[in-house]
Amino acid sequence: MFTHFHALQYEAKPDAPDPDFARKMQEVLGGQWGEMTVATQYLLQGWNCRLPGKYKDMLLAIGTEELAHVEMIVTMIDRLLDHIPLKPDAADRSKEAAAGYGQHNPQHPIVNGAGASYMDSMGNPWTGAYVTASGNLMADFMYNATAEMQGRLQVARLYNMTDDPGVKDLLRFLITRDHYHQQQWLAAIEDLKTEGLEGIPVPEAFPLEEEVGDLGYTFIDTSDGPDAAAGSWASGPSIDGRATFAARRIEATADAPILPPGDPRLYPTPQ
Amino acid sequence: MFTHFHALQYEAKPDAPDPDFARKMQEVLGGQWGEMTVATQYLLQGWNCRLPGKYKDMLLAIGTEELAHVEMIVTMIDRLLDHIPLKPDAADRSKEAAAGYGQHNPQHPIVNGAGASYMDSMGNPWTGAYVTASGNLMADFMYNATAEMQGRLQVARLYNMTDDPGVKDLLRFLITRDHYHQQQWLAAIEDLKTEGLEGIPVPEAFPLEEEVGDLGYTFIDTSDGPDAAAGSWASGPSIDGRATFAARRIEATADAPILPPGDPRLYPTPQ
Amino acid sequence: MFTHFHALQYEAKPDAPDPDFARKMQEVLGGQWGEMTVATQYLLQGWNCRLPGKYKDMLLAIGTEELAHVEMIVTMIDRLLDHIPLKPDAADRSKEAAAGYGQHNPQHPIVNGAGASYMDSMGNPWTGAYVTASGNLMADFMYNATAEMQGRLQVARLYNMTDDPGVKDLLRFLITRDHYHQQQWLAAIEDLKTEGLEGIPVPEAFPLEEEVGDLGYTFIDTSDGPDAAAGSWASGPSIDGRATFAARRIEATADAPILPPGDPRLYPTPQ
Amino acid sequence: MFTHFHALQYEAKPDAPDPDFARKMQEVLGGQWGEMTVATQYLLQGWNCRLPGKYKDMLLAIGTEELAHVEMIVTMIDRLLDHIPLKPDAADRSKEAAAGYGQHNPQHPIVNGAGASYMDSMGNPWTGAYVTASGNLMADFMYNATAEMQGRLQVARLYNMTDDPGVKDLLRFLITRDHYHQQQWLAAIEDLKTEGLEGIPVPEAFPLEEEVGDLGYTFIDTSDGPDAAAGSWASGPSIDGRATFAARRIEATADAPILPPGDPRLYPTPQ
Amino acid sequence: MFTHFHALQYEAKPDAPDPDFARKMQEVLGGQWGEMTVATQYLLQGWNCRLPGKYKDMLLAIGTEELAHVEMIVTMIDRLLDHIPLKPDAADRSKEAAAGYGQHNPQHPIVNGAGASYMDSMGNPWTGAYVTASGNLMADFMYNATAEMQGRLQVARLYNMTDDPGVKDLLRFLITRDHYHQQQWLAAIEDLKTEGLEGIPVPEAFPLEEEVGDLGYTFIDTSDGPDAAAGSWASGPSIDGRATFAARRIEATADAPILPPGDPRLYPTPQ
Amino acid sequence: MFTHFHALQYEAKPDAPDPDFARKMQEVLGGQWGEMTVATQYLLQGWNCRLPGKYKDMLLAIGTEELAHVEMIVTMIDRLLDHIPLKPDAADRSKEAAAGYGQHNPQHPIVNGAGASYMDSMGNPWTGAYVTASGNLMADFMYNATAEMQGRLQVARLYNMTDDPGVKDLLRFLITRDHYHQQQWLAAIEDLKTEGLEGIPVPEAFPLEEEVGDLGYTFIDTSDGPDAAAGSWASGPSIDGRATFAARRIEATADAPILPPGDPRLYPTPQ
Ligand SMILES: [Ca+2]
Ligand SMILES: [Ca+2]
Ligand SMILES: [Ca+2]
Ligand SMILES: [Ca+2]
Ligand SMILES: [Ca+2]
Ligand SMILES: [Ca+2]
Repeated sequence: MFTHFHALQYEAKPDAPDPDFARKMQEVLGGQWGEMTVATQYLLQGWNCRLPGKYKDMLLAIGTEELAHVEMIVTMIDRLLDHIPLKPDAADRSKEAAAGYGQHNPQHPIVNGAGASYMDSMGNPWTGAYVTASGNLMADFMYNATAEMQGRLQVARLYNMTDDPGVKDLLRFLITRDHYHQQQWLAAIEDLKTEGLEGIPVPEAFPLEEEVGDLGYTFIDTSDGPDAAAGSWASGPSIDGRATFAARRIEATADAPILPPGDPRLYPTPQ
Repeated sequence: MFTHFHALQYEAKPDAPDPDFARKMQEVLGGQWGEMTVATQYLLQGWNCRLPGKYKDMLLAIGTEELAHVEMIVTMIDRLLDHIPLKPDAADRSKEAAAGYGQHNPQHPIVNGAGASYMDSMGNPWTGAYVTASGNLMADFMYNATAEMQGRLQVARLYNMTDDPGVKDLLRFLITRDHYHQQQWLAAIEDLKTEGLEGIPVPEAFPLEEEVGDLGYTFIDTSDGPDAAAGSWASGPSIDGRATFAARRIEATADAPILPPGDPRLYPTPQ
Repeated sequence: MFTHFHALQYEAKPDAPDPDFARKMQEVLGGQWGEMTVATQYLLQGWNCRLPGKYKDMLLAIGTEELAHVEMIVTMIDRLLDHIPLKPDAADRSKEAAAGYGQHNPQHPIVNGAGASYMDSMGNPWTGAYVTASGNLMADFMYNATAEMQGRLQVARLYNMTDDPGVKDLLRFLITRDHYHQQQWLAAIEDLKTEGLEGIPVPEAFPLEEEVGDLGYTFIDTSDGPDAAAGSWASGPSIDGRATFAARRIEATADAPILPPGDPRLYPTPQ
Repeated sequence: MFTHFHALQYEAKPDAPDPDFARKMQEVLGGQWGEMTVATQYLLQGWNCRLPGKYKDMLLAIGTEELAHVEMIVTMIDRLLDHIPLKPDAADRSKEAAAGYGQHNPQHPIVNGAGASYMDSMGNPWTGAYVTASGNLMADFMYNATAEMQGRLQVARLYNMTDDPGVKDLLRFLITRDHYHQQQWLAAIEDLKTEGLEGIPVPEAFPLEEEVGDLGYTFIDTSDGPDAAAGSWASGPSIDGRATFAARRIEATADAPILPPGDPRLYPTPQ
Repeated sequence: MFTHFHALQYEAKPDAPDPDFARKMQEVLGGQWGEMTVATQYLLQGWNCRLPGKYKDMLLAIGTEELAHVEMIVTMIDRLLDHIPLKPDAADRSKEAAAGYGQHNPQHPIVNGAGASYMDSMGNPWTGAYVTASGNLMADFMYNATAEMQGRLQVARLYNMTDDPGVKDLLRFLITRDHYHQQQWLAAIEDLKTEGLEGIPVPEAFPLEEEVGDLGYTFIDTSDGPDAAAGSWASGPSIDGRATFAARRIEATADAPILPPGDPRLYPTPQ
Repeated sequence: MFTHFHALQYEAKPDAPDPDFARKMQEVLGGQWGEMTVATQYLLQGWNCRLPGKYKDMLLAIGTEELAHVEMIVTMIDRLLDHIPLKPDAADRSKEAAAGYGQHNPQHPIVNGAGASYMDSMGNPWTGAYVTASGNLMADFMYNATAEMQGRLQVARLYNMTDDPGVKDLLRFLITRDHYHQQQWLAAIEDLKTEGLEGIPVPEAFPLEEEVGDLGYTFIDTSDGPDAAAGSWASGPSIDGRATFAARRIEATADAPILPPGDPRLYPTPQ
């Protein structure tokens, strides 16, 4: 159950409208790594979490904070869209460039009446397929960590794509929170390990004696890049501490498959 | 540039057809965390990689191996679909259950003529939106690690959903390779750190002095779960080694936003 | 900005697990007319609303309540998925039917580990394309009213598709809230009219003298159904009170179009 | 069964090509609220309608008219795409702006050879998910009414985004028909009520005694906006005429949910 | 412009309801190769066709006939959905099998109230991305021919998946029309060639002297399948009559690409 | 099983960066008719092929070559994205036009860090729904032929949309291979016919005596275009050599359908 406050967690006010940048900001609202994804994902992981206690409580707390981030970015986009030019100004293209006509999203005026929507910078609607909630916290916290990395990367790039002080101020806030949230997931992963709840390989409970030969510790090379095995993944102690890494070329171990003939009721070639 | 060999990396032959399980196997072929995703993702990260050497070479090598995994799962699905029943057998439902009619994917016979396709177990087509290639190797390797975790988790679950020895044999192979690949990405992340190419927070090159106050080290609690701050993410040394974690309740720092009136050319309420 | 409480707005506990029904419940979570749609839609309309006061405040209030509905349905689905059977029981299909194997969603166990996800009952992920926020309150409140009608209809149908008292109890709650919410939007539409903020046709501010002839008041019949013009839409006073309805057969008013030849740089037929 | 006539219902000829505007026109062809949606939706509602007579006949008649609207917009887009510039003219940007290069849709020349396609202004393909046909006429006619409102709103906005007299002429036609069609659906809703076929709440046949307490008449406030309960939805007689509206703050009525532990066969955290 | 007649082109009446088969029939209504695709595709190709005369006229005629096919399949699905069981009958699974509960589409009752919708047999909504209209008639007529082949194949498979005489009767009609339509497109392709409007390779107007070496006539072998070059595509006269086919192994002709370092403003690895 | 070589099949190096053209090139990488489609489609058809020998071997060979085409286009796009401008240059729009800012894809810098991704020129992600593999080789080879036609058409159009010699060189290579591949599929179709494996109508094994009347040889006219029956599809010998073509107007052969009343458990109109 939630309650809402009209005041914002942080200011979301550009110094001037910029419809082109409004389109770009959509990426961190409704793109794969935008705030919609982390808000709905952390909440879903929290609700689905069958282990009561600190992980579940933390998931619901951070998910709720991310809703406030959604709110601020929507507000910023709305303000960037003020006075959006509706037609190109053929007589004076520099005026138009300043006004942000060249790259704006036509759905912003036509569909949303100068408002934000749940899409990315290319107009793809946000989708629930962006959300991962596997029921295994280690697997999901790794995903959450990468989400905060991809997210911070995108906001940091946007920071280099505008000169507006008000926009940059909100971006700095988002970058800072992503800094913390990266650490939050990495710390939670360490806690999972320390508490013996999960380890490498995920899921650790699958019996290792069911695995096949040395394939759990072998880099298989399939390309002619000379340095593919020059990393710590191809020699030395394994990450899970159970063996030593090795490397070899790919090899076939089964014959070319011969499929039975097609079923005539399905009209294959040949009957 | 690639060359192909008809022989398989590993055997992909069920002991008996099972159209229901064929549908389930589609998840690890064309689902979000299936082999199509990792194959095309590692190749794209490799091609796009602007840093020559071991990372680029390794990416192209593993991507190419994953293509062989796609091939084996397609082959397995094809064989599971042999003799697919086309109608329910009203007189004898147990016969039908054995034959796998109850949960089969109707597109397997109607659209693909008893063949695999690039979709997941619920029939959603695989999409390029599953692929992440950000140009930042640390962010992407974290994603790759979670992909191998989600993937191994799904295959391990499928292992508990069939009794067919031939199917289980291929699943054991896939589980084993995912075991290795998880370690491969974690090892590569360690190499990136050791070599000073990237660190926490990602991207490390964004100047930390631009960040806002202590928000890079503060857990913000927004829910009444009593244990949300009981993890190592809310007190003690920070993961990036630069500060100490703290926790506090969420607070508003900006007034409720007042948007300017709508643009009459867009017919808002009010005019 | 939001805060969250772990306690639920209403109880969400089935008397027994039922994985088949869990799949069906997904429709009112992540389907086109599910709680995800209304929650995110009302919030977006509220944030985007450029008219301060009761409409904006009400939108943000109802959107926040809908988040609590999302939470309850996720919780219900999680509990319906307890002890999900992983394999058909060929020896005893009636046992299986009772356990809900026949129609379950394979992604529930494979992808989500017996948890809910943001998809509908056929596995289509929820999409931001379901959300409408046009900036015109009358147009959007009509959409909101139909959303609550479609939603109540679906929940009422689900009510007839289960005998579980716990499930039915939550469905009764949802049906009751949809009853209120339908009225809420219809009342808000009346307020908009009363206050002179919008009227029929939407948008009322477009100058009617720009319209074409009597086409704003004429039913155009294109089919041979004998009763098409037998409704109040084809004769009598018009809904907007400005004219009288009439009816006539469709007629062409422009010649068959002749397009200029294709551009040879685009290789049409013919060059 | 249909027959087709090459002559157009209304003229669809721009005074000059304008590839940028062609892209924008796609919104009302293949966008969520475009002519493809209403044409296919009204026809589907008509074919599915299990009540013979005036509603079914009217649905099939209006759906068939909307096909003529699809045809006219396709024709308009084709003509706007004549002589589309294939490259930017770096030497003279104003010339290019006049020619409409800046915002054009690259698929128009590359994929469609200067022709229309079934997508919106951001290139999202039209989807059957836009179509609603619930089997309940009241719920669907409300949807149809909002469709005509959203549609008229978008066309009226487009009207302010061009100076081309030929384009404006077709837009005026579409705006006028949307004016009528809004009234048509509102009149049909009145007929449904008058004839006792449906009422508020939809579906009216669900027994009201199954509803929960006073929740069918209560505005639940979850936010701190001071005016949320200042509308006619929170006090006074209810819309359905059966009670009086009230308002109160959101309250929890069930404890925080405790889910049972995860199933070990699915490798949750913890095992 | 269209007119509609309530009478059907052919009867669409099953002998008995069958909700399972209703789901399967959706494939040829709203699937990639269903009637929605061919109806909307032929009409779009016709409207976009810049060459007046027999091809344009024929396209609009066949597209209009396909709308009648859409109508018949919708009608058939509606009737197959009569009396759809809403719950499994645990006591008597054979009764349920007869009633078609096991594989039915849950959206049919929940969303559509026992009506058809624009989706395929796995519930994916029909999408405008299925429609091809390139502006080159030869390329598009080849696509149309394959559409009628894929379509006839699917209907012929459905014919083997039911025993209902009424359903089979409509399927026979559709199979027969697909028989004719395959020939229609192949005949139109011959006309295009005979009239010199297009030839192989498409587009024939691209100057062949711009092509690279003998690569327009060479089979490039990349796999170890022994028979890959045993077809008429690898030796003998070429299809376009201009040369002789040859075969050789794939060879690299350019060095491994070295990309320039990443742009620091985008935070790549390395900085 | 595959192996990979870093050297390229053909050079993929532009003379200068051009982010606008990078966006356009995405169409032939991740669009419906791009290299991702043909690569994954030919491989899937090959793996699924139940007829051993030349067709299966050839499918796997050509699919593997197409992977090399994917690689080259990715490489080209990466290089076109070097030094992508991050902001418009309001003071000097011609400079910006030269740099390719006006039409660039904002996800290229924000999401992919100046790298390619699996999407088309409008940003739609590539989808497995583009892939056809029916199990009937004739139907699929027709599809493959049209894929090579649509593909060559698009590349030939791109050739007219750039002046960069390096880009044009790669486009010439792709156009040339598409020339060959069109012939390859047409030759394979001839082989299928010659060897008696399939014929017209596809599938030929469906018994023609089950077809309905003369509808397999009759053009049905539904429009008033005067020339619709002026092609070889409406008179003269049929393509399958079994009859003579005829033409007639569309006629209804079944009464207007009367559906039974809706099921009250689903709350239709009326109850
Ligand atoms: Ca955030
Ligand atoms: Ca793998
Ligand atoms: Ca609700
Ligand atoms: Ca219309
Ligand atoms: Ca047809
Ligand atoms: Ca190619």
